[in-house]
Amino acid sequence: MADVEKALALIKRGTDELLVEVELIERLASGRQLRIKAGFDPTAPDLHLGHTVLINKLRHFQELGHHVMFLIGDFTGMIGDPSGRNATRPPLTREQILENAKTYREQVFKILDAEKTEVCFNSAWMEPLGAAGMLRLAAQYTVARMLERDDFARRYAGNQPIAIHEFLYPLCQGYDSVAMRADVELGGTDQKFNLLVGRELQKHYGQPPQCILTVPLLEGLDGVNKMSKSYGNYVGIDEPPREIFGKLMSISDDLMWRYYELLSFRSSEEIVRLKADVAGGRNPRDVKVLLAQEIVQRFHSRQAAEDALADFEARFRQGALPQDIEEVAVRCAAEGIGIAQLIKQAGLAASTSEALRLIEQGGVRIDGERLSDRTLVLKPGATAILQVGKRKFARVSLS
Amino acid sequence: MADVEKALALIKRGTDELLVEVELIERLASGRQLRIKAGFDPTAPDLHLGHTVLINKLRHFQELGHHVMFLIGDFTGMIGDPSGRNATRPPLTREQILENAKTYREQVFKILDAEKTEVCFNSAWMEPLGAAGMLRLAAQYTVARMLERDDFARRYAGNQPIAIHEFLYPLCQGYDSVAMRADVELGGTDQKFNLLVGRELQKHYGQPPQCILTVPLLEGLDGVNKMSKSYGNYVGIDEPPREIFGKLMSISDDLMWRYYELLSFRSSEEIVRLKADVAGGRNPRDVKVLLAQEIVQRFHSRQAAEDALADFEARFRQGALPQDIEEVAVRCAAEGIGIAQLIKQAGLAASTSEALRLIEQGGVRIDGERLSDRTLVLKPGATAILQVGKRKFARVSLS
Repeated sequence: MADVEKALALIKRGTDELLVEVELIERLASGRQLRIKAGFDPTAPDLHLGHTVLINKLRHFQELGHHVMFLIGDFTGMIGDPSGRNATRPPLTREQILENAKTYREQVFKILDAEKTEVCFNSAWMEPLGAAGMLRLAAQYTVARMLERDDFARRYAGNQPIAIHEFLYPLCQGYDSVAMRADVELGGTDQKFNLLVGRELQKHYGQPPQCILTVPLLEGLDGVNKMSKSYGNYVGIDEPPREIFGKLMSISDDLMWRYYELLSFRSSEEIVRLKADVAGGRNPRDVKVLLAQEIVQRFHSRQAAEDALADFEARFRQGALPQDIEEVAVRCAAEGIGIAQLIKQAGLAASTSEALRLIEQGGVRIDGERLSDRTLVLKPGATAILQVGKRKFARVSLS
Repeated sequence: MADVEKALALIKRGTDELLVEVELIERLASGRQLRIKAGFDPTAPDLHLGHTVLINKLRHFQELGHHVMFLIGDFTGMIGDPSGRNATRPPLTREQILENAKTYREQVFKILDAEKTEVCFNSAWMEPLGAAGMLRLAAQYTVARMLERDDFARRYAGNQPIAIHEFLYPLCQGYDSVAMRADVELGGTDQKFNLLVGRELQKHYGQPPQCILTVPLLEGLDGVNKMSKSYGNYVGIDEPPREIFGKLMSISDDLMWRYYELLSFRSSEEIVRLKADVAGGRNPRDVKVLLAQEIVQRFHSRQAAEDALADFEARFRQGALPQDIEEVAVRCAAEGIGIAQLIKQAGLAASTSEALRLIEQGGVRIDGERLSDRTLVLKPGATAILQVGKRKFARVSLS
């Protein structure tokens, strides 16, 4: 039972909700290799760290010896799921889906063990269902219960159109669990309803219902909004090492611990030790370097991580980055904020005209690099370390 | 244009609603052979006269030279349409559907010209749609608009379950119109919503939208409820000649004119003449005989119609049925009413004990036949001509 408890602790680390825990404990205790499902709409082929929270959780299961099934929703991708959104997503073509799926594989195998991962496409069982099978599937659920889903309820109440095919999405996703005989399905918190539909359909088809595990949305670099391309506060896993490293070095210390929990593969014990170190006086910058190096190494290489660190330190002239940099959150309009205004708001200059003069004199650095463009505009979601002269620093995050 | 007006008058005879009339006039004026669609769920293979109102209308189009397509919903029959009902209809098996379809053909070709009727099965185009095509179809309509359908709105408001596949029914029916390139679709008044969905889908698929024509529900023999097996107030088209004849002779004079309008193939001019005859003193009984004979001949033969009349007259001893028989509407419980009680309520006996004595003495006839069973029970929906002694008559209808 000690093993089960240890496994459960790893599984639950950083997750939002586990239903039903006693059922999962039973299955873990059975010693059987569990079938772990996570589905991905092949709509966003460029993964950022926010997407990897779920994939990291799959990796935990893989480390525990379970069978991970990475489902690419090539069939359901043609529907367009509106979960958590207010608009119907446009359907993808078959070609787009296959192209995206290819990119998915390349990216996720930087985290998952390709040898131990089963990649599935739900067209394999959805297409043979046929039109009649789709009708029979649609007979399994009622309109009223489907309208209980948060986003559907909100859109219906707000007179925003819900196309009928959107009601079929949760049923297709649930049927995937039947076809895959899933023991556990993972998803974002906004997927809880769909995951529960899977439980019900499995019961209907005579299978023990899957446990469901939801993972939270990762905060973006600004620590405010969820990480998202549209917010500009993301770290893409295909970005160059130097970009990833610099972006991670720019996050707040609080957010660093959040990222450790959700993104690092260090054990919980190690993280507890790092926290104790910082409490005992270790520079949090050094701990942030460890995180940034781990992430760069994951998506590039150990060498790239070391080069990125060297480059970063050279830019700030080794040792010049002070231990405590003030964190300044700046709200700005969607079109962004001019660099001079930002310098002023960060308290690094008394006025924008002073800030402009400092830039012209070559006295301003942004992420360690000398700034020459006085018309630079930063958008909401961006983060940066600003340096004015030798000793004035600020870690700014825009929202 | 005179021809178009004449055709339009025949098409509109006895109908409930025609949308859009100017569009139909244009198509009729084009001189083109129009494609006329009517769909039937193969759930009720034993047709009664109520079902034939729509088929008679198809015959009108056939008489006008148009192309009639009799659609058997073998695919949609697997869904179970709840139109006008409060409960989900159980789906039929493929075998039941095919058996029912066979019975349908046999019965409708007593009205339609088999040579000129195209019998279609919607599985021919629905099955090739596949699961993905079904999704694309479901994308054409919104939940909110579907919930505007009367019965859906009522059930949703009343917290009665609506299975999601029921939302696919109107879409399938609408897609039938696309696949069949229908110019006109006929249906019952409760089908109006579904027929309008057909118009929209046709527009979406780049076709001119069909005209829709709804026919009313036929009143049953009691003249109160719609004709229905469950009300017991029906004339089945497979019933023996004598049954059909007797049942039709038992209807009220008012209902007779309604049946002339909806069931007779006599021209409107002929019916106007018959009304004038009765107004001028002709015995309505004789006009009812003409109707009963026409219907018996349609579903059996001319000889059968003559035999049924001879039999009917023999039972009432030729000429003994008086011109004016009082019509008595009797409300009774679902389990029916005893014959003695009925005789009393019809005013043919002062008490039930007198009625029982009259039966024992052989003095009571029902539909011309001597009654010996004093325990006879008549159910709601039944009609009968009661005769006590030589001169006391009543035409009773139970509801």
